[in-house]
Amino acid sequence: MVIAMKQNALTSQVAGVIAMLKERGIEPRMVTTDPRTVLGVVDELDQGLAKELMGQLKGFPGVDEISSFTDSWKLVSRSFREDTTHIKLGPASIGGEDLLIMAGPCAVESKENFQSLAKQLSVCGASMLRGGAFKPRTSPYSFRGLGEEGLKIMAEAREQTGLPIITEVLSPADVELVADYADALQVGTRNMQNFSLLEAVGDVNKPVMLKRGLMATIKELLLSAEYIVARGNNNVMLCERGIRTFETQTRNTLDISAVPVLKKHTHLPVVVDPSHAAGKRELVPSMALAAVAAGADGLMLEVHQNPEAAFSDGRQSLAVEDFSRLMAGLAKVASAVDRRIVGVNDEAQGNLFAAG
Amino acid sequence: MVIAMKQNALTSQVAGVIAMLKERGIEPRMVTTDPRTVLGVVDELDQGLAKELMGQLKGFPGVDEISSFTDSWKLVSRSFREDTTHIKLGPASIGGEDLLIMAGPCAVESKENFQSLAKQLSVCGASMLRGGAFKPRTSPYSFRGLGEEGLKIMAEAREQTGLPIITEVLSPADVELVADYADALQVGTRNMQNFSLLEAVGDVNKPVMLKRGLMATIKELLLSAEYIVARGNNNVMLCERGIRTFETQTRNTLDISAVPVLKKHTHLPVVVDPSHAAGKRELVPSMALAAVAAGADGLMLEVHQNPEAAFSDGRQSLAVEDFSRLMAGLAKVASAVDRRIVGVNDEAQGNLFAAG
Amino acid sequence: MVIAMKQNALTSQVAGVIAMLKERGIEPRMVTTDPRTVLGVVDELDQGLAKELMGQLKGFPGVDEISSFTDSWKLVSRSFREDTTHIKLGPASIGGEDLLIMAGPCAVESKENFQSLAKQLSVCGASMLRGGAFKPRTSPYSFRGLGEEGLKIMAEAREQTGLPIITEVLSPADVELVADYADALQVGTRNMQNFSLLEAVGDVNKPVMLKRGLMATIKELLLSAEYIVARGNNNVMLCERGIRTFETQTRNTLDISAVPVLKKHTHLPVVVDPSHAAGKRELVPSMALAAVAAGADGLMLEVHQNPEAAFSDGRQSLAVEDFSRLMAGLAKVASAVDRRIVGVNDEAQGNLFAAG
Amino acid sequence: MVIAMKQNALTSQVAGVIAMLKERGIEPRMVTTDPRTVLGVVDELDQGLAKELMGQLKGFPGVDEISSFTDSWKLVSRSFREDTTHIKLGPASIGGEDLLIMAGPCAVESKENFQSLAKQLSVCGASMLRGGAFKPRTSPYSFRGLGEEGLKIMAEAREQTGLPIITEVLSPADVELVADYADALQVGTRNMQNFSLLEAVGDVNKPVMLKRGLMATIKELLLSAEYIVARGNNNVMLCERGIRTFETQTRNTLDISAVPVLKKHTHLPVVVDPSHAAGKRELVPSMALAAVAAGADGLMLEVHQNPEAAFSDGRQSLAVEDFSRLMAGLAKVASAVDRRIVGVNDEAQGNLFAAG
Repeated sequence: MVIAMKQNALTSQVAGVIAMLKERGIEPRMVTTDPRTVLGVVDELDQGLAKELMGQLKGFPGVDEISSFTDSWKLVSRSFREDTTHIKLGPASIGGEDLLIMAGPCAVESKENFQSLAKQLSVCGASMLRGGAFKPRTSPYSFRGLGEEGLKIMAEAREQTGLPIITEVLSPADVELVADYADALQVGTRNMQNFSLLEAVGDVNKPVMLKRGLMATIKELLLSAEYIVARGNNNVMLCERGIRTFETQTRNTLDISAVPVLKKHTHLPVVVDPSHAAGKRELVPSMALAAVAAGADGLMLEVHQNPEAAFSDGRQSLAVEDFSRLMAGLAKVASAVDRRIVGVNDEAQGNLFAAG
Repeated sequence: MVIAMKQNALTSQVAGVIAMLKERGIEPRMVTTDPRTVLGVVDELDQGLAKELMGQLKGFPGVDEISSFTDSWKLVSRSFREDTTHIKLGPASIGGEDLLIMAGPCAVESKENFQSLAKQLSVCGASMLRGGAFKPRTSPYSFRGLGEEGLKIMAEAREQTGLPIITEVLSPADVELVADYADALQVGTRNMQNFSLLEAVGDVNKPVMLKRGLMATIKELLLSAEYIVARGNNNVMLCERGIRTFETQTRNTLDISAVPVLKKHTHLPVVVDPSHAAGKRELVPSMALAAVAAGADGLMLEVHQNPEAAFSDGRQSLAVEDFSRLMAGLAKVASAVDRRIVGVNDEAQGNLFAAG
Repeated sequence: MVIAMKQNALTSQVAGVIAMLKERGIEPRMVTTDPRTVLGVVDELDQGLAKELMGQLKGFPGVDEISSFTDSWKLVSRSFREDTTHIKLGPASIGGEDLLIMAGPCAVESKENFQSLAKQLSVCGASMLRGGAFKPRTSPYSFRGLGEEGLKIMAEAREQTGLPIITEVLSPADVELVADYADALQVGTRNMQNFSLLEAVGDVNKPVMLKRGLMATIKELLLSAEYIVARGNNNVMLCERGIRTFETQTRNTLDISAVPVLKKHTHLPVVVDPSHAAGKRELVPSMALAAVAAGADGLMLEVHQNPEAAFSDGRQSLAVEDFSRLMAGLAKVASAVDRRIVGVNDEAQGNLFAAG
Repeated sequence: MVIAMKQNALTSQVAGVIAMLKERGIEPRMVTTDPRTVLGVVDELDQGLAKELMGQLKGFPGVDEISSFTDSWKLVSRSFREDTTHIKLGPASIGGEDLLIMAGPCAVESKENFQSLAKQLSVCGASMLRGGAFKPRTSPYSFRGLGEEGLKIMAEAREQTGLPIITEVLSPADVELVADYADALQVGTRNMQNFSLLEAVGDVNKPVMLKRGLMATIKELLLSAEYIVARGNNNVMLCERGIRTFETQTRNTLDISAVPVLKKHTHLPVVVDPSHAAGKRELVPSMALAAVAAGADGLMLEVHQNPEAAFSDGRQSLAVEDFSRLMAGLAKVASAVDRRIVGVNDEAQGNLFAAG
């Protein structure tokens, strides 16, 4: 049940609604107070009780509208909150007019490489740095990242460039550590239905980017996001990164229609990762442009100073020059769909791609 | 084997190469004469013979370069012909700077409806009319189209609007009839590997649009196109229209990465059909914009005057107002990627979306 | 609508029902007369008319039960005909207690090879010979079969062994020719939705085996079978041969659950082709045993005298010794699920695998 | 690298090999000592070093054969250990002639229900009890199991029936608790690539059943098993439970070919779960019979006393009568492929299905 208060409702009127529900053993969740207060009841109520409560609430002062959830996802639903959630990420943000461009290597490999790359990405207009410190690897014998050392390197690059950082967390036990360093936590493809991890990132006060599983439906992605939001963390971004199909020319098949489907069903911002979907760097620019045209709120791109020598995923990483050229193209397409790309340091550094 | 002649090669020199090959029992194919003559040998030669011929040809006057085919597709390969094939479709065309916008209903339902819709599409800037006269239907008990009557209705709409027409052909026995009326023949998804139909459309002198099978890899699509071109019909467009996956929010999953993959491997122009992929009209505009941003040469869109009353596929058909709005958006994204949308009658009718 | 007559209904009573329907412009189809006459009306009637007719028919002498079709497939539905269709194929048959074992090479390559193989297969207890004379090939440059020459070779092998023959037909234009030679026609995977071919094989008086498309749903397979049966050819076998998935260890993924799903929904007999699904001969025996345990009515197996030298599909072909060993295993599993394997020439040749 | 010692090698000779490797900084793993000692080196050695070591080891007394790993999975590979791993599970076992039949409800719902069901399953010849205490649920609002209370109920049922118990563990934090109660731990489909969970179950001394992910390739399943075995827990069973495809008649598509593929590539025993794959109880028996015919070492079946009233997965649960009937059929097919079904209490209870 969704209870929308009038825009000019008094605090005491909101409190009255909450008190009445609590008396009946129901704990409402407050989703937003701006521009008006909206409360959600996610408990499965039996039909009789739901009807009785709705009748009662209609008479409460300050209550504007009451409706039911129509989907199995509730707090993340567009029907619950109409406007797209706007998430602050240090000096950057996602969910508004500006596109969030996250760029960086698959794995943080060394301090020197990462920091020099970070500066170049900043100059090109990237709005956030990505990099893996804890890497999920299909084989136990592959390089699994630098761990906390990698997090430190990323944090130093943030100092130097001003760009916020995002990195993956693999285990509930590591959530606190990663949250200490990063501006946003990433839950990866293989962990989309690792429910104990979802609850752990739902309990911290840091934005989370949740990647769609390789063979997860959009409905399952929304329900996994619901796990996080149900724990009280509303700042969730969803990321489409390709699904598994029979086609072998690409590593995975980017489901571009996931963008409008998600925008229709949820108020959470939507990111597209064309690098992992394509698996081949020459395909990435077309797919990135397509994602922006389709309405994505952000992009996650793998960029490496020397893709051929990368520890992992080199085949799909853009070189810095490619990224720079792509940013120019993205700015044009963004403008054609009424979006903007603004680098964090545009004023200081005179970024070429900044709109106005 | 691909034999490229020098740009200033004499006709007699080309004839000399052909004569030599024929003497050895090999029939070369002429793929292009502009800007220079290129000949292809698609026979599987044994290595010894191939080597011997290449050595001999190097000494021929007028021969510039000789190379092997690197892929299992040959005549449709980018390595065979570098520039994109430019196909004339009456007053419209595909493969150049201008995007080809094909629009119309799933099935031609009546003369009045089709002609009135055709006029509206023309005003909105469409460059080609689509409509089904012979409909492939999963069930034998569904409406299968008006047949030749439908073709006549389409031809009259062409008279009235000046727009060329494209329609599907289902059987080798119907190829001649359909080619008598239409400016281009469509081979549908379910017939992508109907090899006798591919050969039949390869034998007529009309452009063909070949749709990717629901279950077909990109490699298989290229090899099916090779069937048509190998019969002498070089004017083939390829159409990505969604593949089958596990996701159920959309009818099929549009494989947007097929656009850059195809552009890399073939010189044939690439069309995207977001209507069949999406299956829901509200998703079509985002996907159409994405297709243009990704580099498609054309779009095929289902538009109906009264989608709710359509005989088939109404759920995915745009209303005319939606189409008109989409055309304005497409013009902007097209311009951002250095393409244009020009209606066939732009000068006469003052089309709003015409570039320049 | 399905109209079941009483077991002792008079011919004149059946004629009365037919006459009444024809008067109303409806052409009923006779599906079976044994043990009782059943008529089907596949026209989409409007609800009012359907109700009126059902009421009227209830009063007709000899009419036992009247029911509606519950699925979009009608004549092939189990609700239309309860017992499995029993199809005679020369001395062999399918749909009863005996399993039909079709064996042979992918393509007929030469008279000597085919005939010597045919004799060996006969001794091993095979009940039908398979072999390709017209081969569908993904590439136009691959070997496409011996054509009519191949059909003649197969027919001679039938003379010599007594085994009936099945072979693929690719085009409506070839149906008559192939039907002149073969005991059953095969419609291949790529042609499952080639509707003009389905209608052409529906018009001949020869059993048809329809293979499931690589990415066709079971519902689509049933509707394609409906195309054939709707033309009057009731002798259709359905063949599961693997669907396309993301797994790469096998050529395709055999959908073993298609067997019980099909047995539930249709009265047509079900064949499994593990060779094409597996793509690797060492996997074929396990999958063949599984198919029989799951309830398949027949198997189609690729066997070659010298698999390494086969023109096509050698990697998945069993050697004769493998086939012989597999037949022994199949006989045991068949017996465990109350089925039998009986060779056509068991009495004459003393087949080891014959059940009693 | 795999180092196989001679069957009559002395302990001191084995120690010599280990000492030499440790001196070079390499920690070999002992995989088996019966019938001969086999050591594995899983470190990625550079080619030069590998060659040098192999040369040196050939001269060592007691060394029989040295070979390289040919696959990316190592310790779980058939090339590392030829015979199937035999795992003891209380009075039952898997990997030998006897099939392991695990049966029980999706979730443990109440003490009374579970215990009465357990007794019935025992009488029918089941060899292990399954039941969920911690349930992974797509939605955060669904029933998530009774937790430790459920584990206690299962342990009591083991007391009463003698049957060992298996149950799922969802989080590294719960591994110790679940291992205190259960005879085997299950890692579910959604957690197949939850690498921190894999390592946690690799550290306990209890057999583990690892279910294939909905979207996982067989190669990825083997590499996930490698994570567990690499931590020292060799007692791993692999479970095929259906993969995601486009077919909608079944919940998932059981990949029956995974059985022979896995048997070829790994020495770990293979279980099939037809209940989750089918999603409909009427399909389960055929699929279970197929699994045994294909060579599975065990089955996991959902059985419920009153499927219509189950908290979860009722649609796919067999009733006890169905299970009893299926066991009779399974015994026959098992015998046809030289396997046996023996209930834990067969002697005491006079199980009908016991072989001999």
